[in-house]
Amino acid sequence: MRHVTIYDTTLRDGAQAEELNLTTQDKVRIALKLDELGIHYIEGGWPGANPTDQKFFEEIKKHPFKNAKLTAFGSTHLARTTPEACPNLAGLLAAETSVITIFGKTWDLHATTALGIPLERNLELIANSVAYLNERVDEVIFDAEHFFDGYKHNPEYALQAIRAAHEAGAARLILCDTNGGSLPSQVAEAVTEVKKHLPDASFGIHAHNDSEVAVANSIEAVRLGASQVQGTINGYGERCGNANLCSVIPNLELKMGIETIGRDNLSRLVATSHYVSETANLRPFLRQPFVGTSAFAHKGGIHVSAIMKDSKTYEHIEPEAVGNEQRVLLSDQAGKSNILFKARELGYDLKKNDPTVDRLLKELKLKESMGYEYSVADASFELILLRALGKPLDYFHFRNFFVVDAKREEDAEPFTEATVIVDVKGQQEHTAATGMGPVNALDRALRKGLERFYPNLADIKLHDFKVRVLSGAVRDTGGTASFVRVLVESGDKNEHWTTMGVSHNIIEASWQAVVDAINYKLFKDEHK
Amino acid sequence: MRHVTIYDTTLRDGAQAEELNLTTQDKVRIALKLDELGIHYIEGGWPGANPTDQKFFEEIKKHPFKNAKLTAFGSTHLARTTPEACPNLAGLLAAETSVITIFGKTWDLHATTALGIPLERNLELIANSVAYLNERVDEVIFDAEHFFDGYKHNPEYALQAIRAAHEAGAARLILCDTNGGSLPSQVAEAVTEVKKHLPDASFGIHAHNDSEVAVANSIEAVRLGASQVQGTINGYGERCGNANLCSVIPNLELKMGIETIGRDNLSRLVATSHYVSETANLRPFLRQPFVGTSAFAHKGGIHVSAIMKDSKTYEHIEPEAVGNEQRVLLSDQAGKSNILFKARELGYDLKKNDPTVDRLLKELKLKESMGYEYSVADASFELILLRALGKPLDYFHFRNFFVVDAKREEDAEPFTEATVIVDVKGQQEHTAATGMGPVNALDRALRKGLERFYPNLADIKLHDFKVRVLSGAVRDTGGTASFVRVLVESGDKNEHWTTMGVSHNIIEASWQAVVDAINYKLFKDEHK
Repeated sequence: MRHVTIYDTTLRDGAQAEELNLTTQDKVRIALKLDELGIHYIEGGWPGANPTDQKFFEEIKKHPFKNAKLTAFGSTHLARTTPEACPNLAGLLAAETSVITIFGKTWDLHATTALGIPLERNLELIANSVAYLNERVDEVIFDAEHFFDGYKHNPEYALQAIRAAHEAGAARLILCDTNGGSLPSQVAEAVTEVKKHLPDASFGIHAHNDSEVAVANSIEAVRLGASQVQGTINGYGERCGNANLCSVIPNLELKMGIETIGRDNLSRLVATSHYVSETANLRPFLRQPFVGTSAFAHKGGIHVSAIMKDSKTYEHIEPEAVGNEQRVLLSDQAGKSNILFKARELGYDLKKNDPTVDRLLKELKLKESMGYEYSVADASFELILLRALGKPLDYFHFRNFFVVDAKREEDAEPFTEATVIVDVKGQQEHTAATGMGPVNALDRALRKGLERFYPNLADIKLHDFKVRVLSGAVRDTGGTASFVRVLVESGDKNEHWTTMGVSHNIIEASWQAVVDAINYKLFKDEHK
Repeated sequence: MRHVTIYDTTLRDGAQAEELNLTTQDKVRIALKLDELGIHYIEGGWPGANPTDQKFFEEIKKHPFKNAKLTAFGSTHLARTTPEACPNLAGLLAAETSVITIFGKTWDLHATTALGIPLERNLELIANSVAYLNERVDEVIFDAEHFFDGYKHNPEYALQAIRAAHEAGAARLILCDTNGGSLPSQVAEAVTEVKKHLPDASFGIHAHNDSEVAVANSIEAVRLGASQVQGTINGYGERCGNANLCSVIPNLELKMGIETIGRDNLSRLVATSHYVSETANLRPFLRQPFVGTSAFAHKGGIHVSAIMKDSKTYEHIEPEAVGNEQRVLLSDQAGKSNILFKARELGYDLKKNDPTVDRLLKELKLKESMGYEYSVADASFELILLRALGKPLDYFHFRNFFVVDAKREEDAEPFTEATVIVDVKGQQEHTAATGMGPVNALDRALRKGLERFYPNLADIKLHDFKVRVLSGAVRDTGGTASFVRVLVESGDKNEHWTTMGVSHNIIEASWQAVVDAINYKLFKDEHK
């Protein structure tokens, strides 16, 4: 079986993404996760380029990889000096990695404009730098920056540049579409030329997504013989990002019969994708191929009834192969069949003609017209379902709350206090709590009142708290008066659940979500 | 010059996206915007499938298109009846569009499993339906559902199915990769066969993005002769979405020399993309190729200095061609050059050796470590810059605020009241206001206190209000106590500006952003 190595540059090229700001600790965490996934090369960063990368290379030494090779990234030596005297190369070697990746200019425009040196001198920089490093580390990878643009404008020079790296002993030549402007047919043409020109060189591809074809360019290069793909998790990267490894890997493994990280590791892809986005504090991209929450989510009535007969009808792979799962969504387009499916998922077997289903459908459509979106809040949906089924859920009865935020000029943050009155098991509890913000204060005051009766509430951790302004309402009433949807993700040692609230008032919306979260916890501990 | 028609299905296939919920009015607005963009075919929906689509076809009659043809979408007639007696076809004709698109099964599995009919009967459904509609409307387009999967499993039958539609008079055969599982090389192979099999048929492509190659599949089909591409704005669509027209169109126009909507319309692409995401109430995808906010944003120091010499060095097209623009970002990776660039953008000419720049850099790095992200809040950045330059900005001086949210069980929403004390021009103003939520109440109370002195504040509209939980903090302190970043987008008749606040307390973070928004307005009205 043919094998292709995967080279991850999430920590270097990925970190150039506008929305990405990784701390050294984030980078260490991600690197170890990538090693677990079976990635072959992990590019840690550019030693010396910034304090984060500098610290990373010191820190990571305490955490040896299981499988992956750590690589340091940098440029060819400075034109005004020699490899021996160049601080950049010294910095690279100081990182003490067994593999070093350096990029060199292969587009004449860049040599003359960006570097401002003669074309001949640029070839020397490449050859000297590769040769110098090659004597000092196990493996030198040459990133042929702007190779495809260079090939378009001056094919002869672009080929000379990679030949220089090859003859100086580069283990692999990486053809970079640095500006992401190339189309698959152009990549195919250039790659075919490279193979003619350097038949014994082993080469790889590094594509950017500016034309939305980075994944296609990568697999096309592999189809024509590339032995390595460089990319990032979730396609993070400068501008439009890099080739998305979460799509490249399954395409190679599941569709082209090429081994990369192997089928077992493949099933960790979703977990890895989420781990990286969570660590980077980025909302995951719902529609992301293979690993996205929507990737195997079905909404249209026809599709839902078809997949209930045979998943193959509307799914290109088995979701489990990449660690994903099939989902059926509720929505105004959804008929009863979706509700029945959803209910069955949750373990409630409803009959299509059960009047409960009609009542439920009506209530859901009404709520969704107000901005509730049950496809993202399973726990709140289950509570509605339970009430429709006549379950009382009377663990406590709300009476009052009162929240104060007071700020004086000398305070850094406002003083926040909440009081809550609830009836629990026939007694009235009146509690007060301060908090970091009104929602936290309310949450703490409410739990104070309940935990005496329900000690298991102490296990609840609130993992995430999302606020979404519903811009339909923004159009009507303007910014700070608009409708908001609050999603609260809670968990205990056994499971995670998401609840929701919608209101003009962010406190009220949060309150709804927190109350649902507590009711759900109490119900599941009692019945599951 | 070769011409390819663009067929937009944002309102039908796009509306199947998990996060999309369009009202009839939203659909009408979007349709008219697409017509302006020069899209050739606009698929309005499936008449009768749901009330929204039903109403849309009535409503849109009041708004005749300038250029586009409106199409109604549906399936071949029901197996148990005839075209004449089929309610689906009747519903399609009732929509009174000049073009009708019907999909038919071309994958044997679907005929037998999903429809549960003999293969022969399925061919009859296709032929009869196309022929029947063809006598009643100007143009019938046949969507060959699952064509590429069908071709993979039973090429002969897949080709028979499209031949049936072709011979029955379909104006165009659309080869659909319904499950999005096909790779460009597979699309190329099937398309080549189709051309051999039906040399005189005109065909198009409808690709889904489940393998992240929908754009590549679409342009590959065009390269091999397809005369129409179907897709959606921003790639919205079921599961992973459809071929993204915002990438397909510029690739064809700018890279393959094929005319679609024309160069003039092309420059409206960014505006259209944002209009659709705003109308759909979806946060735009920053890294979206061509039209995304990050598409031409530069962060790395090397890249910034290179593009300052020549944009071509790191940009694959001129951003203006699609209505986008070059941006330079501030970040911990950014050096002084980014700050100088940013300051120059805002009209402040700083010298590299100016001590202000060092002070500014220090302050920005500190703030960003706290979660401030100045790349998304230009106005807040300008205020920091102004303070660093010694501008006092003493329009008012904050003393106190006090916000109350009180809810009793019978209230739908809490009662909210805010009081504010500020010194303005030597006088102390003590004002109170209610509001829809604490932030709205604070905003209103503060403006009450200021508008008497600064009547121009009445022009400010708050357009959007975004709350982001910073999960770095979530890791430390948990959900409702986590750090939040609030972004407020304000505007008056002349411009829009974004300000920011960060705090544990959502009220405090919002307060910071609102105060910045007001200070920015007062400063610009005084000086610009």
